Amino acid sequence: MDIITSKDNELYKFIKKLKVKKYRDLEQQFLAEGRKFLEFEENPKLIIFKEGISEEIINIAQKHNCRKIILTEKLFKELSSQENSQGVIICYASKIKELKNLENNIIVLNRVADPGNLGTIIRVADAAGFKEIILTKGSVDCYNDKTVRSSMGSILSINIYYIEENEVIQFLKEKAYKIIVTALETNSIPYTEMELTEKNAFIFGNEGDGVSREIIKNSDEKVIIPIYGSAESLNVAMATGIILYDVRNKLEKK
Amino acid sequence: MDIITSKDNELYKFIKKLKVKKYRDLEQQFLAEGRKFLEFEENPKLIIFKEGISEEIINIAQKHNCRKIILTEKLFKELSSQENSQGVIICYASKIKELKNLENNIIVLNRVADPGNLGTIIRVADAAGFKEIILTKGSVDCYNDKTVRSSMGSILSINIYYIEENEVIQFLKEKAYKIIVTALETNSIPYTEMELTEKNAFIFGNEGDGVSREIIKNSDEKVIIPIYGSAESLNVAMATGIILYDVRNKLEKK
Repeated sequence: MDIITSKDNELYKFIKKLKVKKYRDLEQQFLAEGRKFLEFEENPKLIIFKEGISEEIINIAQKHNCRKIILTEKLFKELSSQENSQGVIICYASKIKELKNLENNIIVLNRVADPGNLGTIIRVADAAGFKEIILTKGSVDCYNDKTVRSSMGSILSINIYYIEENEVIQFLKEKAYKIIVTALETNSIPYTEMELTEKNAFIFGNEGDGVSREIIKNSDEKVIIPIYGSAESLNVAMATGIILYDVRNKLEKK
Repeated sequence: MDIITSKDNELYKFIKKLKVKKYRDLEQQFLAEGRKFLEFEENPKLIIFKEGISEEIINIAQKHNCRKIILTEKLFKELSSQENSQGVIICYASKIKELKNLENNIIVLNRVADPGNLGTIIRVADAAGFKEIILTKGSVDCYNDKTVRSSMGSILSINIYYIEENEVIQFLKEKAYKIIVTALETNSIPYTEMELTEKNAFIFGNEGDGVSREIIKNSDEKVIIPIYGSAESLNVAMATGIILYDVRNKLEKK
């Protein structure tokens, strides 16, 4: 296994660039930190260890047939985004895709801005058995280190698409999805009364501004989560989880 | 309004101590940061502004008939736990209570450790119309700054109790609550099949270890949230939100 000791090493410089969205987009690769990622089937491009890493972790990594390198503690620290790092960072090929035929029940996130929220949504969407998330352009990058971390590995399982808002609307109409948005409008109904059709797109909006007027205008149903106490609202990730599990329960009963 | 400029000021020293759990417990007071808190009815003990605070915010604070002080920027910064502070910190009397007669549907948190999780749970419990949360001793402090912040004000609406684990079990049995725990056991059922009785206690556990063996042993029903995709689990706050809203939907239908 190669040991990299100089910050001028070309491979190291390449990896470090992947901390920046621009280069992640350009190189179509991203970093995921933590030994947990070694357990997934997904084939890495590269596995990066901190010097002094345990034999145990190196052994777990053996199942992946890819290049593996060791960095000095100093170089590793500059790459790591975790205070108590486990000493493993994995480089994967990006999985952002072109819109083609999607599953019958999909999620659309309209300008979700917080990386932690996006990761939490990816995790709960995966748990609830959804496979596809379309993000409108302008949403936070799904390969942000916080997003990758809070997805707890589900970033590797969910198909993600970044599409312009108007193209999303066009796509959903063309493919005959029922467009269900979470929005507080005069004719919104409780999410529990939502009527599912053969194909449904569930749309959640920005943390502050919610779903855009344009998407609301083009929606088929507007739903809210009723608030029974004195809380003003729910966090978008929590709202997404509550609605997606309710949808999954309905789909399972069908 | 008094302006405090010295870190040796007795009131300032008193307030600063409230950043530490030991003194919060001793003084039965806690701090909440952000102008949002000014909107609530709850009567503060003291309102603390940063020098240069806007007239608008001072005006909003007028509705509260309590002492108000101004701190120099430097003193305020030492007190603040937010990077982009809005320049308002409010001191309230603690609301931790003695166990007496509680509502028919209550929440028990068994050694939940992460302050952000606790705040998120308090918020979603409030949203879903629950009023009471018992925390077993050893759980994180509900007046931790992160908890207060992520509760988004719901910390002021929810009644909170800290009780020893064995006392909680005894209380629930004596008061004839059905004890429903989230735990992955051989005889666990999906949460959607949970059977509610007149009085129900919903128990959620520690982030890593779940609910204690002792509580599971004394439970009446064990439920899980089914995972349909490849995610391994859900965060405890998310799991709590999904289950509490499902319970609320069932209660509303009764």
